[in-house]
Amino acid sequence: MGIDGYLGWSLANYLAKEPFTIYGIDNFDRRKWVREMDSVSAVPVASMQNRIRSYEKAYNKQIIFSKGDITNYDFLSKQIKEIKPDTIVHFGQCPSAPYSMISQAKCVSVQKNNLIGTLNLIYAVKEYAPDAHIIKLGTMGEYGTPNIDIPEGFFEIEYNGRKDRLPFPKQANSWYHLTKVHDSNNLQFACKNFGIKCTDIMQGIVFGFQLPNGSKETQLNTRLDFDQAFGTIINRFCCEAIINHAVTVYGTGKQIRSFLPLIDSMRCIELVIKTPALPAEYKVVNQFANIHSIYELALKVVSVCKSMNMDINIDNLTNPRKESEHHYYNPNNGNLRNLGYTPSTDFEQEIEKLIVGIKPYKNRIMKHSKILEPTIKW
Amino acid sequence: MGIDGYLGWSLANYLAKEPFTIYGIDNFDRRKWVREMDSVSAVPVASMQNRIRSYEKAYNKQIIFSKGDITNYDFLSKQIKEIKPDTIVHFGQCPSAPYSMISQAKCVSVQKNNLIGTLNLIYAVKEYAPDAHIIKLGTMGEYGTPNIDIPEGFFEIEYNGRKDRLPFPKQANSWYHLTKVHDSNNLQFACKNFGIKCTDIMQGIVFGFQLPNGSKETQLNTRLDFDQAFGTIINRFCCEAIINHAVTVYGTGKQIRSFLPLIDSMRCIELVIKTPALPAEYKVVNQFANIHSIYELALKVVSVCKSMNMDINIDNLTNPRKESEHHYYNPNNGNLRNLGYTPSTDFEQEIEKLIVGIKPYKNRIMKHSKILEPTIKW
Repeated sequence: MGIDGYLGWSLANYLAKEPFTIYGIDNFDRRKWVREMDSVSAVPVASMQNRIRSYEKAYNKQIIFSKGDITNYDFLSKQIKEIKPDTIVHFGQCPSAPYSMISQAKCVSVQKNNLIGTLNLIYAVKEYAPDAHIIKLGTMGEYGTPNIDIPEGFFEIEYNGRKDRLPFPKQANSWYHLTKVHDSNNLQFACKNFGIKCTDIMQGIVFGFQLPNGSKETQLNTRLDFDQAFGTIINRFCCEAIINHAVTVYGTGKQIRSFLPLIDSMRCIELVIKTPALPAEYKVVNQFANIHSIYELALKVVSVCKSMNMDINIDNLTNPRKESEHHYYNPNNGNLRNLGYTPSTDFEQEIEKLIVGIKPYKNRIMKHSKILEPTIKW
Repeated sequence: MGIDGYLGWSLANYLAKEPFTIYGIDNFDRRKWVREMDSVSAVPVASMQNRIRSYEKAYNKQIIFSKGDITNYDFLSKQIKEIKPDTIVHFGQCPSAPYSMISQAKCVSVQKNNLIGTLNLIYAVKEYAPDAHIIKLGTMGEYGTPNIDIPEGFFEIEYNGRKDRLPFPKQANSWYHLTKVHDSNNLQFACKNFGIKCTDIMQGIVFGFQLPNGSKETQLNTRLDFDQAFGTIINRFCCEAIINHAVTVYGTGKQIRSFLPLIDSMRCIELVIKTPALPAEYKVVNQFANIHSIYELALKVVSVCKSMNMDINIDNLTNPRKESEHHYYNPNNGNLRNLGYTPSTDFEQEIEKLIVGIKPYKNRIMKHSKILEPTIKW
């Protein structure tokens, strides 16, 4: 679900050599949202028709694609009934915090879109594919920045002399992040009540766009957004660097977040696919490679650029968001490590690969550099 | 908001003698939902026109009423802009766990209805009445039944040697209860981010329908539902008793919940109205009088009936819900006590008042006794 998006299309490519039959659903809303922001992907994105055609040529494998909106239960339930999938990877959501904060209308449309899609999926699985494993994309942003360690979904605590294992409190910081919290709560109940299997992935911020095992055919490229709403931070930094724009840090940049290269995201999802949750189990995994402050990342991008003979500055913009810039941050990612995940250790190398990869699109990025400016404030 | 409902109409009556100008909004969805279940209120409900006319006659005071749907932002924002209320009591939601569990369509419609109404309210207040105090009706059911004490919204904890004050984890047990959790999360963010004032009331299960200070004019009666979906437990028990039906307990009845008479609910809301939250404050109060197991309540109803020469049995039905019947339960209600709330101590007397109050409607209840049966299972 959401096969046309940044992660969805990457996963389709990443899994091409696996012995899976791959079905894809999308309504192309991501393309619509990005157009709405007057933005473009740094890397040109082929039509789904061309993507599928090139995929078949490159991997000698089909993708069975259906265009449709998962907030339409008739559409989704018919798909699940016909496909009877073993695994459903649910990327079919609006993924942008700034987009959700633009206005009342955007707030409501993002919450409606994201919640109803997941509720429909829960019922379609319950009715037509009760053994399917739902892999749901959440975000590390659900947790916020508590002053204590962040476990994976649940924690054992003692309070007033009694003990319990409880869901870890969530403190999301945008309407978008809140949709992921609502989804987590809805899914947890659905697992318990309907006996459904779900792994909820709390994912850090992903960057990169080329996969080492993927075809180099440009028609198979995934998208790479760099605008203020859909451009995630390292991708945005690298697009800035490639056009000699200063790397723009919001506020002091002392905010700490968790990150992972695209290839790590794919490897983790593969591990999760291959280790399904049990019936009625709601499993949470924190999915990230490393923890850095935003400013540290900016320094890393600048240093990689220097080694490539590009002289880039850092610009601290007034933070357009109300967020804590001085905080404790210590999340755990033991569940994926126990499944065999070893984080990519050479972040600089991954950043370099990204910069090399987007170099051919320098003029395209330059032409749209206006979309880098953070005009959405909250 | 929701002035036509069980609590909304009670509050309008309760506040009649206060020096407030009272505005009311409703789209009569509660009447529609109850009709949809082939149910009726035990107590006949006058039309809003007649309610308002009788209100004016009884209290020499107007209610300024507008029919409309709060999920329509144009309608709601226009209201808030024109009224510029000091306080908004938000009862405008679907309040039924069983109703929300009927089907995929009901699940989605309840979550959509409840969430969008609150999101619209947040934006309308932010834009047009930023000083207004939002009083939001939540439910004690948001907490579920954790094995530790239940504080009011937040708790101080130590975890891995570090401390923080965090939102208390929620474990709701139906799509309806989950809407209240989602609302709490959305409101908490809205307060912090937009500087809004909100008191979120985690209310126990309310029973009763007559207020001691209210007019005895029957046109002013609030509704009293007793069907499986909209009838809350003590109201349902008393309606059963009045027609010599056994009091029907779901499962063993060892489930423990918190309860309060209608008059206590009104007193607490009055205290909350008179003690607004501060700008950017998201305050949580747990609102209940007493804690009982369901079976204890059944025994209380049977004992009150006995004192009124009615001989009633208790019938343990197979529990239609997946819920724990043996659990710890110790919620705190110190915040309201600190504001001056003293719980009604004589539960039996409140139950007796309710039974006396609904006696005139015995035939009406008898005629619809079929709607008592719990056919909605989850």
